[in-house]
Amino acid sequence: MKYRDDTDQFLYEYVRHGMTPFFGVPSVDSSDPASAYLGARVVLLGIPYDGGTSQNPGARFAPYSVRQASIFAVNADAIGRLSGRGAVDGGNVPAPPRSPSAMRELVEHAITGVLSAGAAPFVVGGDHSVVLPILRAVAKRLGPVAVVHIDAHTDTATPSEFLGGDPYHHGAPLRYALEEGLIERGQLHQIGIRMGFDAALTREHAVNIYDIDEVAQGVRPLMERVRAAIGQRPTYVTFDIDAVDPAFAPGTGTPAPGGLTSREAIALVRSLGGLRIVGMDVVEVLPALDHADLTSLLAATLLMQGIAALGAPGEPG
Amino acid sequence: MKYRDDTDQFLYEYVRHGMTPFFGVPSVDSSDPASAYLGARVVLLGIPYDGGTSQNPGARFAPYSVRQASIFAVNADAIGRLSGRGAVDGGNVPAPPRSPSAMRELVEHAITGVLSAGAAPFVVGGDHSVVLPILRAVAKRLGPVAVVHIDAHTDTATPSEFLGGDPYHHGAPLRYALEEGLIERGQLHQIGIRMGFDAALTREHAVNIYDIDEVAQGVRPLMERVRAAIGQRPTYVTFDIDAVDPAFAPGTGTPAPGGLTSREAIALVRSLGGLRIVGMDVVEVLPALDHADLTSLLAATLLMQGIAALGAPGEPG
Amino acid sequence: MKYRDDTDQFLYEYVRHGMTPFFGVPSVDSSDPASAYLGARVVLLGIPYDGGTSQNPGARFAPYSVRQASIFAVNADAIGRLSGRGAVDGGNVPAPPRSPSAMRELVEHAITGVLSAGAAPFVVGGDHSVVLPILRAVAKRLGPVAVVHIDAHTDTATPSEFLGGDPYHHGAPLRYALEEGLIERGQLHQIGIRMGFDAALTREHAVNIYDIDEVAQGVRPLMERVRAAIGQRPTYVTFDIDAVDPAFAPGTGTPAPGGLTSREAIALVRSLGGLRIVGMDVVEVLPALDHADLTSLLAATLLMQGIAALGAPGEPG
Amino acid sequence: MKYRDDTDQFLYEYVRHGMTPFFGVPSVDSSDPASAYLGARVVLLGIPYDGGTSQNPGARFAPYSVRQASIFAVNADAIGRLSGRGAVDGGNVPAPPRSPSAMRELVEHAITGVLSAGAAPFVVGGDHSVVLPILRAVAKRLGPVAVVHIDAHTDTATPSEFLGGDPYHHGAPLRYALEEGLIERGQLHQIGIRMGFDAALTREHAVNIYDIDEVAQGVRPLMERVRAAIGQRPTYVTFDIDAVDPAFAPGTGTPAPGGLTSREAIALVRSLGGLRIVGMDVVEVLPALDHADLTSLLAATLLMQGIAALGAPGEPG
Amino acid sequence: MKYRDDTDQFLYEYVRHGMTPFFGVPSVDSSDPASAYLGARVVLLGIPYDGGTSQNPGARFAPYSVRQASIFAVNADAIGRLSGRGAVDGGNVPAPPRSPSAMRELVEHAITGVLSAGAAPFVVGGDHSVVLPILRAVAKRLGPVAVVHIDAHTDTATPSEFLGGDPYHHGAPLRYALEEGLIERGQLHQIGIRMGFDAALTREHAVNIYDIDEVAQGVRPLMERVRAAIGQRPTYVTFDIDAVDPAFAPGTGTPAPGGLTSREAIALVRSLGGLRIVGMDVVEVLPALDHADLTSLLAATLLMQGIAALGAPGEPG
Amino acid sequence: MKYRDDTDQFLYEYVRHGMTPFFGVPSVDSSDPASAYLGARVVLLGIPYDGGTSQNPGARFAPYSVRQASIFAVNADAIGRLSGRGAVDGGNVPAPPRSPSAMRELVEHAITGVLSAGAAPFVVGGDHSVVLPILRAVAKRLGPVAVVHIDAHTDTATPSEFLGGDPYHHGAPLRYALEEGLIERGQLHQIGIRMGFDAALTREHAVNIYDIDEVAQGVRPLMERVRAAIGQRPTYVTFDIDAVDPAFAPGTGTPAPGGLTSREAIALVRSLGGLRIVGMDVVEVLPALDHADLTSLLAATLLMQGIAALGAPGEPG
Repeated sequence: MKYRDDTDQFLYEYVRHGMTPFFGVPSVDSSDPASAYLGARVVLLGIPYDGGTSQNPGARFAPYSVRQASIFAVNADAIGRLSGRGAVDGGNVPAPPRSPSAMRELVEHAITGVLSAGAAPFVVGGDHSVVLPILRAVAKRLGPVAVVHIDAHTDTATPSEFLGGDPYHHGAPLRYALEEGLIERGQLHQIGIRMGFDAALTREHAVNIYDIDEVAQGVRPLMERVRAAIGQRPTYVTFDIDAVDPAFAPGTGTPAPGGLTSREAIALVRSLGGLRIVGMDVVEVLPALDHADLTSLLAATLLMQGIAALGAPGEPG
Repeated sequence: MKYRDDTDQFLYEYVRHGMTPFFGVPSVDSSDPASAYLGARVVLLGIPYDGGTSQNPGARFAPYSVRQASIFAVNADAIGRLSGRGAVDGGNVPAPPRSPSAMRELVEHAITGVLSAGAAPFVVGGDHSVVLPILRAVAKRLGPVAVVHIDAHTDTATPSEFLGGDPYHHGAPLRYALEEGLIERGQLHQIGIRMGFDAALTREHAVNIYDIDEVAQGVRPLMERVRAAIGQRPTYVTFDIDAVDPAFAPGTGTPAPGGLTSREAIALVRSLGGLRIVGMDVVEVLPALDHADLTSLLAATLLMQGIAALGAPGEPG
Repeated sequence: MKYRDDTDQFLYEYVRHGMTPFFGVPSVDSSDPASAYLGARVVLLGIPYDGGTSQNPGARFAPYSVRQASIFAVNADAIGRLSGRGAVDGGNVPAPPRSPSAMRELVEHAITGVLSAGAAPFVVGGDHSVVLPILRAVAKRLGPVAVVHIDAHTDTATPSEFLGGDPYHHGAPLRYALEEGLIERGQLHQIGIRMGFDAALTREHAVNIYDIDEVAQGVRPLMERVRAAIGQRPTYVTFDIDAVDPAFAPGTGTPAPGGLTSREAIALVRSLGGLRIVGMDVVEVLPALDHADLTSLLAATLLMQGIAALGAPGEPG
Repeated sequence: MKYRDDTDQFLYEYVRHGMTPFFGVPSVDSSDPASAYLGARVVLLGIPYDGGTSQNPGARFAPYSVRQASIFAVNADAIGRLSGRGAVDGGNVPAPPRSPSAMRELVEHAITGVLSAGAAPFVVGGDHSVVLPILRAVAKRLGPVAVVHIDAHTDTATPSEFLGGDPYHHGAPLRYALEEGLIERGQLHQIGIRMGFDAALTREHAVNIYDIDEVAQGVRPLMERVRAAIGQRPTYVTFDIDAVDPAFAPGTGTPAPGGLTSREAIALVRSLGGLRIVGMDVVEVLPALDHADLTSLLAATLLMQGIAALGAPGEPG
Repeated sequence: MKYRDDTDQFLYEYVRHGMTPFFGVPSVDSSDPASAYLGARVVLLGIPYDGGTSQNPGARFAPYSVRQASIFAVNADAIGRLSGRGAVDGGNVPAPPRSPSAMRELVEHAITGVLSAGAAPFVVGGDHSVVLPILRAVAKRLGPVAVVHIDAHTDTATPSEFLGGDPYHHGAPLRYALEEGLIERGQLHQIGIRMGFDAALTREHAVNIYDIDEVAQGVRPLMERVRAAIGQRPTYVTFDIDAVDPAFAPGTGTPAPGGLTSREAIALVRSLGGLRIVGMDVVEVLPALDHADLTSLLAATLLMQGIAALGAPGEPG
Repeated sequence: MKYRDDTDQFLYEYVRHGMTPFFGVPSVDSSDPASAYLGARVVLLGIPYDGGTSQNPGARFAPYSVRQASIFAVNADAIGRLSGRGAVDGGNVPAPPRSPSAMRELVEHAITGVLSAGAAPFVVGGDHSVVLPILRAVAKRLGPVAVVHIDAHTDTATPSEFLGGDPYHHGAPLRYALEEGLIERGQLHQIGIRMGFDAALTREHAVNIYDIDEVAQGVRPLMERVRAAIGQRPTYVTFDIDAVDPAFAPGTGTPAPGGLTSREAIALVRSLGGLRIVGMDVVEVLPALDHADLTSLLAATLLMQGIAALGAPGEPG
C-alpha cells in the first residue's frame, strides 16, 4: 500500500512542524514569484482582508482557519493530485485591513505574479471585494474571461452613499467587473442566487442567472448547460461560501437560508472539470461564526475539488 | 437604480435608531388597534411566552431575536412587498410567563384587535400553546377556518396528568382547536409529521396528515393537493420551526432529526400563494440553543415569504 | 388514549430518578449476563473508549450523551417497540482508555455475553476501533456474517508506522475483519464512502462499495440491492456517524463534508427491516464538538430505528 | 496507597454503568423513604423545576448536568467523606413544570421524608422558588431555623401583578419564608447581595444583609460573625449560583456582574463547618447557558463542600 | 412597595414593545437634538462602527447587544436614578463602516448636539477610534478636559504604515487627543495598562499611567489619588472593555489576560462619584466572541454605574 | 518610535506568510539540532500528544492553537525580549498519539537536542505525561534539578489498574520523577494544589506543597520563600493550565474550580525571575473546550513571561 506511507509521511510533516500551509503543500517565499512558482501549476494564496464587509466582519481570519482545516481535507488521492499539479502555498497577500485601494493594488500585483509564472491562483479570501483586483489581473493578461460565480447574491449593487467612502464594497465587485469589461459579454454565470438582482444590469450585460430553484432541479444538467455555453474560453471561478445554506456553512457574514447543500456544492465544483480554469477563489468564510470548523473544512474541500478539476478529465489543463 | 437607495435608507434607519421592529417596518402603539393599524394589511406581533413548554424552555426570547435577524432577511423586493402590504409592527403581547390563562386572554384580545382592523396577524411565538387563543380569535370572527400546520409533531396530545396544572401545554393546541370547532372538519392539514399521531382523533376529525416521507417526494405536488383541498376557504398558517431539521434550525425546544430542509420549508410557504391567508405564526424558536442566529434568520425568512404569499399571485388577497 | 399515559409514566420515571438508561429501558447489572439479559431481545451497551482516534478524540463520552439525548427520541410507538423487544440497558463496557488490547478483550467478552443470552447487542461507541472485537465475538458464535457498514471512510487502512504502537486504530477495523475472515466474502457492504479506498483490498475481498453519489440517487433502490445481495444471512450493522454530513452531525472526530442527510440516514436504517440483524452499533459521536445535542439525538434516533428494524416487518427476527 | 484503589473502583463503577447518581453514591428508590434512607446522613435530591423563572428559563435540567459534572468533582478525600456520611442519591422530585402548587406539595413531602429518616437533604434545583416548600418542611419539623442565604438578590420581591398567576415566583421565596415564620427573627443571613433590597422588610424582620462589598473585604472574618450570630441553631443553607460572578458561573438565568469568585464561594461554604446544618441547596444552575460545564462543576463542588462541612470539624453534626 | 410596581411597569413596557432602548429609557428622535434632549441630563448613544479595528472586528454590533442586555441590568434603584437624571436614548450615530472620516464628522456632530442641549453623552462603541471625535466635540465646547481612560493598552500608537490608509485606527486615539490639545496637560489618567507604552510620549504630555499592578493593590486608594489630581475639572471617562480580564469580558477584539475583575471594574466606575463628569463611553465590546452575554451585561452595568456617579454624591453634577 | 515599526514588520510577516511559529520567531528545521539551534537561548517546541489523558482528551491540538494565539500576545517589549534571547521555533515533536513509549523516547531525544545546543526548551504540551521524558533529559544532562510545579493536582498518583496498559498516565509524572531521582530531594515545589495529595509520598520525598489557600494570601511572599529555598539550583518549571481557575482557562481536561486568577498566574511566572531556569512547559490546554481562545492566549502569555524571566533581572541566565 504505497499511498498509506505517503499519508503517514504527510501527517508526520504536519505534526513535525506545526505549521499549516494549505493541504501541507510546500510553502514558498513569494517575494520573487518567477523563481518561487517555477514549475508550479497551482499557487495557493490567502487574502486576509474584510474591509469591504457590510454585515458581519471577520473574514480576515479565513486564510488561517482554512489552512488549518485543509490538513483534514486531504486523502491519498488528493495528495497525488496536489503533487501532480505542482501546488505550492505562496502565503498571504498582506492587504491592510483599512485601505481598500492598497488592497486592490497588492492583490492585482500578487495575482499577476502567479499568472506570469504560468500558474493558476487558488485563493482564500477575505470578503468578496477581493475578486475585483483578481479579475483585473486575469483580464489584463488573458483579455475578458468567462466567470462562474457561485453565490446567494449577485454582488452587483451600486456604490452606496450610506456605506460611504471607497465605493468598492463586497456587494458590488461583479458590477465593476462587468462595467470594466473584465468579463466577456454573456459569460458571467451566476449560480445559486436567491436574494434578488438588478434586472437592467442583467439585461445590459447578458448575465446568466441560475437561481437556487434551478440548482435544486439538478446540478449536473445545469452545469452541462454552463459548460456548453463557456466552451474553451478561459474561465475564472469565484465561490462565495454563502451560496451554501448556513446549516452547512454557518461561518459567513451574510447568511441566506435556502441555499446549496454541501453535496451540491461539491458536485458543482467537480462538474467544472473540462473547463479551461485559470483561477479560483473561495471567499466570505468567517471563522468566528463557524461551529466545529464546518465552514472552513467545506471551503478547503471545495478548493481541493477545484484543483482536481484543473485539467481534468483529459488532464491537458 | 431606485431600489438601492431604498435599501440604503432602510439601513440608515436601522443604524440610526438601533431599534428592531420586524423587517424595519414602522412600529406602532397598539393600545388603540383601530387607529394604530389603520390602513395596514399586515400586523406583526411577538408573543414572548413559553409557559407551555415540556422539554427545553426559552422560546420567550424569540420575538427579540427574530426581530433582530429579520433586518438581515430583507432585500429590495422584500422592502417593496412590505410597504405594498402596509406592514406594521404592533409590538409584543405582554403575556405573563407563568399564567397560561392570562396569556390566552391577552392573545385572543390582541388578535381580535388586528382582525377587527381588517389586517392579518403575522406572529412570532413563544411556544406552540399560543396558537389556541389565536385560532379562537380567528374562528370567532370568521367561523371555522382551514389550517395549514407545519410541524414535526401533530400537537394533539391529551392533557397530561404528570405535566399538571393548566392542561393547555404546547403539545396539545391542535386537539383543542379541533374539539372546540375552530377548524372546519377535514381542513386541518398537518405537514412534516414524524413523531407519531393519534389515529382515533385523526379519523374522528378527518385530519389530513402529510408525513415527512410525503414531503420528501416533492413539496410542489404535495402543496398542489393541499391548495386544491382548501380552495378559497379562509386559511390560517401555523409553522412550528421544529418541522425543519435541527441542522437548519438547531434553536428549538423539541428537535426531531429527519425534517424539512430550509429550501423545502421556504418552498412550502411560498406555495401558499393563492390561498386566502388570514394570518400566520412561526413558533418554537429558542434562541439560547441557536447557533449564529441560523434559526432566527430562517424564521424571519419564512415570515417574509408568508407575507409575500398574502394576496399573491393575483394580489387581491 | 392509552399511549399518552404511557409516555407520562415514562417521563415520570425519568424525572423521578434522574438517571439515563438508553430510552428509559430497564437498566440491569450485566456482571451475570445469563440472568441479567434473560428474556431480552435487545441489550443496549456503551463503550466509552477513544484510544484508537487519529484526529479529534473525545468519543469516550458518547455513551453518556447519547443516553441523555435518547430520552427525547422516544415517542409512544417507540415505547411500544422497545418493550415489545424486551430491551434492557446493560451499562458500559469498562474499556481502559489507554489499553487497546484490554479494550478488545473486554468488548469481545461483553458481546459474547449478549449473544449467548440470545439477544442482539445495540452498541454506542467509542471510536470505530471497537467494532473489531464486536465482529470477533459475532463471528465466533455465528461464523462469518454479512456486514452493512455506513461510513464516509472505508476504514481499511494499513497499520500506521507513524501512529505507532498498537496497530488497530479507528481507521482500520474493517481491514482486520476481512483478513481475519469475520465477514463472509462478498458480504461487506460499505455505504456512503467519499474519502478514497484501497482498490486492491476491495478486489481481493469482493467488497461492495456504494459511494455517496450512489446514495444520492436514492436510498430505497440502493438498499433493495443490498438486501437482495444479503438475503437471510445473519447481518451486523455498523454506523459511523461521520457518514452523515457534518451539518447534521457536527459532533464527530473526522468530519467529511458532502455526506448523508439525516433523512437519508434514517431511511437507510429503516430499510434494514427484513434483514436478519444480529447486532448494530453507532460510533464516533464526539459530544465536545456537538451543538445543541444534534449529533447525540440523531445517533439515538438511528439506534431506535435499528431496534425497530429488528424483526420487522414480519416480526420473526 | 489505599485511596487510589478506591478512586479506581469508583471510576470503574461510573464507566461500568454509565449512570450518574451524584458523586457516584448509591442511588436508592425513594418511594419508601424510611427504608431507602436508613442509615444515611445525607440524601441528595434533584428538583427539575423552573416554572418560577422570570428571565432565562432552563434550570429544570440542572439536576442532570450537576449529577454528570459531580463525577469529576470527587477525589479520594471526597469519597471518604461521602461514605463516612452515608450519602445516597434519592433521585429527583417529579415536579410538574407548569404546576407551582403541585411542585410545592411534592417538594415539601420529599423533604419531610428525608428529615423523618434523620438525614439532611442536599438539593440541586431548579429555580429558587423551590426553597419555600423546603423551608416549610424544615420548619414544620424543627421550628423556625437560621438560614444562610448566598445570592446576588435578596429574593424578597412582592407578588407581581404582571408576572401573573401563582404569586410564588423565584424572586420572592425568602419574603414568604419570613412572613410565614419559617425563619427565626434575626436569623436570615443574606450574603453577596448586589441588586438592591427592600428596606422596610429588612427592618421588620431584622434581616442581616452582607452585601458584596463586605464579602470582598474577606470571607473569613465575615463568616466568623455569621457563625457567632447563629451559634448552635439548626441552620439551612440556600446557595443561589448567581451569587457567584458570571465569569465563574455563566450558566444561570439572572446573572449579575461583580459577584463572588469561585474561590470565595468555596471558602464561604467551607466556613459553614461548625454550624448545625440541617440541609442545603444549590439552585439556579442553567446548563444551556453554561460553557464547558463550568457552572455545573462549581455547583457540584459547593455541594461537596457543604457535605464536608456537615458535622465538621468536631464531627457531631 | 412602590418600586416593585415600577419594575413591573418597566418590564411590561419592555415586553409590550419588544424594542430595546438602553435601560428602557424613552427613545427620542435625535434629528433635532435641541428639542429631543430638552430636560435630559443624560443622552445614551450607540456608535456601530468598527472600521478602526486591527485584530478581531465586530464591535459594530455592540450597541444592539448592550441595549438588549441593559434591560437585565436595571433594578429599582437604577430606575429611580435614570428617571431622576432624565436619561433618554438618542439612537445610534449612523457611522458608515468603511469611511473613517465620515464617522468622525458624524460623531463629533452628534456629541456636540448632546452637549449643546446641556446633557452628558453616554456612549456605547464601536471600536476605540470613536473617542477622538468625541473628545474633539468635548474640547471644542469645554476646552481641554481631564480624561480617565481605563484600558489594557495606552492607545497611543503611531500611524501604521502597514495598516495603511486613514491613520486614525483604534490603537491611537489618545495620541491624537494629546497632540491636538484636547486633554489638559497632566490630566490623562490611564488605568489598568498592561501591554507596554510609549515612554517618550508619556513624559512629553505628563501622562499618568496606573498599570494593572497598581490597580491590584486596591481600587479605592488608587482612585482617591486620581480624584485628588483631577479636582473639579470637567472630566471625560473612556472605558475600553478589554481593561477587564477576558474571563469577565470575553467578547472583545484585543483581549489581554491579567486584567481587572468585574468587581474592580464596577468599583472603579463607582469611585468616579464626586468628579465633574461630562460624558462617558464603553467601547470595544464584540458580541460575536461573547458567551451568554457576559460582556454586554457588564458593559451595561458599567454604563449604569457611570450614570449613577454623575452628580453623586452631593448631586450637583 | 522605533518599536512601532518593528511591530508593523512583525505583523507584516505574519500576514504575509500565514504561518504561525510561536510569537512569530524564526522557525527552524530541528532535524539537526546542533546547527538549527546555534546561537539560540530559547527553543520553542510543541508536543501534540494526549495519550495519557484520563478525563477529557484533545490537548494534542494545543501546539497549533497556542501558536496562533501567541501572535496576539506579543507587544514591542516582547519582540525585543524574544530577539534578545535568540528564540526559535523548533516545530513539534512528532509523538504518535497511541504509543506512550515512543512519545517518551522522542521527547527525551528532542529535549536533549535543545539542551545540548546550550538552549532552554520552552514547551507546549500535550497532556502532563510529557513532563517525565522532559525531566529525564534534563536530569541526564544536569543531574537532579529543582522543579517548580504549578497545578491543581499533585500528579503523583500510582499506576492505575483500571486505566490499564502503560502506567505513565497524566496523573502520575511527578511520582515517577521523584522515584527516578530526577528531582533533588526537597526541591519539588507544588503550587496551587487543591485536589488532595499523597501524604506518605510527600513526606518521603520532602515535597513542598503550597496549596491554593497559601497562594490566595499573596503570590509575592509565597514566591520569595520558593526562590529562597531554590537558590541557584538549575530549575525546571512545569505549568499545568488547570492550576488556573476554569473561568480564566476553560479549555482544559480536568478543570478544578477555585484556582488561580490569570493575574496571579502571570505574577507567579514573573516572580521566577532570578532563578536559574533551564526549561519550562505549559501543558493541558484543550482547545475544543476553550472559548474565544482565552486559554490559548493565557498559555502564550505565561510562556512569554517565562522567557522574560529567563536571565532576568540581572540577565546572566
